[in-house]
Amino acid sequence: MNQFELHILGCGSALPTRRHLPSAQVLVVRGKQFLIDCGEGTQLQFRYTKLNYNKILDVFISHLHGDHCFGLIGLISTMGLLGRHAPLTIHAPGNLENLMKPQLDYFCKELPYEVRFSPFDSGKHACIYTDRSLEVYTIPLRHRIPTSGFLFKERQNDRHILKDMIEFFNVPLREIPAIKAGHDYITEAGERIPNGRLTIDPTPSKSYAYISDTLYTESIIPYIKGVDLLYHEATFCEKEKDTATVTFHSTAKQAGCLASAAGVKKLLIGHFSARYTDDNVLLNEARNTFGQVELANEGLCLEI
Amino acid sequence: MNQFELHILGCGSALPTRRHLPSAQVLVVRGKQFLIDCGEGTQLQFRYTKLNYNKILDVFISHLHGDHCFGLIGLISTMGLLGRHAPLTIHAPGNLENLMKPQLDYFCKELPYEVRFSPFDSGKHACIYTDRSLEVYTIPLRHRIPTSGFLFKERQNDRHILKDMIEFFNVPLREIPAIKAGHDYITEAGERIPNGRLTIDPTPSKSYAYISDTLYTESIIPYIKGVDLLYHEATFCEKEKDTATVTFHSTAKQAGCLASAAGVKKLLIGHFSARYTDDNVLLNEARNTFGQVELANEGLCLEI
Repeated sequence: MNQFELHILGCGSALPTRRHLPSAQVLVVRGKQFLIDCGEGTQLQFRYTKLNYNKILDVFISHLHGDHCFGLIGLISTMGLLGRHAPLTIHAPGNLENLMKPQLDYFCKELPYEVRFSPFDSGKHACIYTDRSLEVYTIPLRHRIPTSGFLFKERQNDRHILKDMIEFFNVPLREIPAIKAGHDYITEAGERIPNGRLTIDPTPSKSYAYISDTLYTESIIPYIKGVDLLYHEATFCEKEKDTATVTFHSTAKQAGCLASAAGVKKLLIGHFSARYTDDNVLLNEARNTFGQVELANEGLCLEI
Repeated sequence: MNQFELHILGCGSALPTRRHLPSAQVLVVRGKQFLIDCGEGTQLQFRYTKLNYNKILDVFISHLHGDHCFGLIGLISTMGLLGRHAPLTIHAPGNLENLMKPQLDYFCKELPYEVRFSPFDSGKHACIYTDRSLEVYTIPLRHRIPTSGFLFKERQNDRHILKDMIEFFNVPLREIPAIKAGHDYITEAGERIPNGRLTIDPTPSKSYAYISDTLYTESIIPYIKGVDLLYHEATFCEKEKDTATVTFHSTAKQAGCLASAAGVKKLLIGHFSARYTDDNVLLNEARNTFGQVELANEGLCLEI
């Protein structure tokens, strides 16, 4: 099975507590690590996982609030001390480069690798990253400043070859990639063998949607429909709904409703307000509207 | 007894480990909190102490390496969220204001208090802070970039009044401040009563010297002579002396030698390299040259 694994490094909100660190996650797809948000302390949290700093391929920042990006400068600096050479691309809305440049120029002037900034339009749903196995799409959110969620979508896997049939029809090796991609096979005698006789359906592609921070908005449903795992912020309880509305955040109940409406397989809630000493009140609230919910927590690792 | 208390929030060096956080300390003098260096994670560490963010009076940054100041932006931002109103002064060598300004303007534009930068010349020994009870002096160090240690010196306490003698000579209340300050008393009849008959010596003033990061340098001895507590970096063991020299750091043995030469009352070592899984090797080495040594550790609180 292809690795598609989520590590929670931080799932608190802006105010620090003893229980949670600010937002940071790592999605590992077939050995490649993608960092999602980077609150203060992210580099320290790495030390409590089996993850390796220098395997981070790209960084995706949802929005430019401090609890989602204050850890970047320390992480960038440490990756330099540890001898990183591969360029690091940071996808973020707005002009993060301008904000970080004075510090990068001063504190990281001897960095042995290149930091590239790749700004995106948080108002649009667009593909901002693609490789052989993964596509990453932005999901426009409704927060106090331009904010985007992310959809991580494994690319369509190859169809599985039926070895017996390949031997039976004497298919030459060079034709295999085309057959795995779904093409029919034409024998040397000119006979067409339909792909369905040579292959079976591929392993379903996996998908993960990261939604933080946002006001409750059904506009995201088409983008997150049926994902294997949805992380949705649940900063507040329904009792604090007014505060949620004013601060452009969601309640646990709203996260559950969205998960249900989008028919996702599993919901993970996070971005907990510092006011809750027991996050189970949020869990229970979300569970009333959606069955498959789990609380995010530092150190949690989910195989998707 | 006047409060003069040191809290260690972080005593590691640049590379993060599970054992230590980067440099940060709080000195509490009669209820006033002074933050010394502010590595990443400082604001999180506050949550593990009885300290209160918004009681921080001034911040003293020894030098502009990331492991000594990357926690500033998060702390400044959080103090704003918690409703700080008192201005915050940050003393630092170099132009920290220029480095932080783009981020302060962007992330902290609604800050309810003022952040003031007070640059100092790290090449000079000078008084950079003074109030009724405390003076803070810079101590020029030898590191790869301009770096300064700090001497925190309680101001001369008042002489203790001998109540019986004050009554005996019928000293009016208005004369007490002058007598506490050491002046003689002239009676209404014109007789001079020497101060020594009216008072006894004050409680000795306390002092704390913070030395991090530096190459071994005896030039600091006159500034730290006889202090009650000396924090000195001990990044390496004597076995790694060459690495210490190249990176402009000290060994534990060197810290002990300096403490001994300066006749300090107690030595606290810190800024441990990530390579040591047991800091006791550093402690034992320092103990060979100076008797009163202790290892810094996160959470340690010393009453000076």
